[in-house]
Amino acid sequence: MESEFAFINHIKNRASAIGSPQSAVRFGIGDDCAVLSKDAKTDLVMTTDLLVEDVDFRFDWITPEFLGHKALAISLSDIAAMGAKPVWAMLSVGVPARIWKTDFVERFYDGWFALAKKFNVELVGGDVSRTPDKIVVDSIAAGEAKKNKAVLRSGARDGDLIFVTGALGGAAAALKLLESGERFEKSPNKNLFLRQLQPQPQTKVGQILGKENLATAMIDLSDGLSSDLAHLCRASNVGAKIYADKIPLDANFKNLSRSKKYKTFFSDNLNFALNGGEDFELLFTVNPKKVSRLKEELKNFSFSHIGEITANVEMIELSGKEKTEILHANGFRHF
Amino acid sequence: MESEFAFINHIKNRASAIGSPQSAVRFGIGDDCAVLSKDAKTDLVMTTDLLVEDVDFRFDWITPEFLGHKALAISLSDIAAMGAKPVWAMLSVGVPARIWKTDFVERFYDGWFALAKKFNVELVGGDVSRTPDKIVVDSIAAGEAKKNKAVLRSGARDGDLIFVTGALGGAAAALKLLESGERFEKSPNKNLFLRQLQPQPQTKVGQILGKENLATAMIDLSDGLSSDLAHLCRASNVGAKIYADKIPLDANFKNLSRSKKYKTFFSDNLNFALNGGEDFELLFTVNPKKVSRLKEELKNFSFSHIGEITANVEMIELSGKEKTEILHANGFRHF
Repeated sequence: MESEFAFINHIKNRASAIGSPQSAVRFGIGDDCAVLSKDAKTDLVMTTDLLVEDVDFRFDWITPEFLGHKALAISLSDIAAMGAKPVWAMLSVGVPARIWKTDFVERFYDGWFALAKKFNVELVGGDVSRTPDKIVVDSIAAGEAKKNKAVLRSGARDGDLIFVTGALGGAAAALKLLESGERFEKSPNKNLFLRQLQPQPQTKVGQILGKENLATAMIDLSDGLSSDLAHLCRASNVGAKIYADKIPLDANFKNLSRSKKYKTFFSDNLNFALNGGEDFELLFTVNPKKVSRLKEELKNFSFSHIGEITANVEMIELSGKEKTEILHANGFRHF
Repeated sequence: MESEFAFINHIKNRASAIGSPQSAVRFGIGDDCAVLSKDAKTDLVMTTDLLVEDVDFRFDWITPEFLGHKALAISLSDIAAMGAKPVWAMLSVGVPARIWKTDFVERFYDGWFALAKKFNVELVGGDVSRTPDKIVVDSIAAGEAKKNKAVLRSGARDGDLIFVTGALGGAAAALKLLESGERFEKSPNKNLFLRQLQPQPQTKVGQILGKENLATAMIDLSDGLSSDLAHLCRASNVGAKIYADKIPLDANFKNLSRSKKYKTFFSDNLNFALNGGEDFELLFTVNPKKVSRLKEELKNFSFSHIGEITANVEMIELSGKEKTEILHANGFRHF
């Protein structure tokens, strides 16, 4: 089997072969969420995300509460990337017997419910299973968008401006600290760690962009800017040019990477913003005519203009101080 | 943490605390599926099922195609148990890198799609992840039922008759053969093995029972008759009396258990029907007034009357040739 992205495309083609003309599926495999017809005014968007111990998290890095939070957060981020409002969710949780005997599961749900409450997401179902050894969580969430108004990856057009919410690189920087042995509990850099351990989905911004019809295309930054922008460009059949000096770097990370202690450790900090995953910010494109309205609607939120969509299909250029180079998709991949 | 059933009840109480008055949730945690409001005429039913290698299946027991089939079948069975029609599904699949390199994933989807095609179920989304060691699959499926007509576990009333579709014990008997070292490929008992490896969801019967308003309560037999009947009785606040000689035993299993070779191996064959899981037949209750119509509607399907609902709350009696005894829930449990 090739990369997971080629495989997903392959499965997408097999799945479309089944679709009937009366199908409720408005958009299936290949976006942050599937889009399904709900009623005359509303579409349902659905996402599922698998979190596996020792691949997506490590037991000694994350508290049960953080893991519960993160399981829901990554699904809410997918829903935000459709411009939709989260509504309900399900959870499949598999744990080994030794973990079942502890307070892990209860604390995991504490973290899950705390985030769910914030956005009025209802837990409607799930499954509990034993596993031989590792913890595994599948997070399923549903959102609602106005009919035909869910924001897909495929709507970006030549000349659209590219934006990201918040700041990038923090989650990947924290991951590197964790890998080097630093731990949240004892770290003076707690806020940076939280970017990795307790990511905040851009639920409000996503809803505004969807409701106000402001974004032509959108994706959440889970694999990393270089990979996620490539996904968006491929789906839209366009290219992109982004500017190195416009990419917003996480402030805590920037400070740390300039400190004496970490200067060498974090030598190329732009790399974390470009290729580090799990920032769970939104990457979206906007028709230039709508930019002034965008600024008005998002005046209470942090977001940055980082580049433009071009007609150079699937070519992504990174414009730096001295030269412009091709940006390859070097974000996270499972295979 | 106590048993998973006590835990699910505990989570159900936590979840209901969040529900808003405008909630789309008609029935959440605690049935085969959650029931959600779709539109003025239709409810959506949703289920998720986690399958974990070495807990729910073993790699050397099952072909990839069978596993793909079974992943969808168990979810379709949950939808059938709501009296609903399956519509779409999602899949989260986690495999180790060594499996990714083989044709496993492709063949898994072959099995999945073959069953999906039979019932016009569309794959709308999913996730692919690497795991450190074991295969894990989360199967998510959605069905539709007429507004307020999804069949819950909680509607059984004193005097209702209890029925099961098909025949029982085959899946558990095949599991025992697998555990003893027999394999499907070389076995003369292939049809019996298929009860475990390739279960057939009772999709058509479930839909008829739902559409025709025939069942007062329903559950699918996944944990085992003794446990699943107990779930139904608890949800309905009733008891039940079933008759040992009316419980339909899988024909292949019955023959095998009477053969010279397997007589001792399968000494108590009723036990497999009572406490063995994964038959994925439907257990349902019917008001006596509707029994003649039931027989008419299900004339092309196999089903048996096995007992009655009683007012002895949560007491389940098993009436045998010589005595009546209390039947305890001895079906499958993860914890």
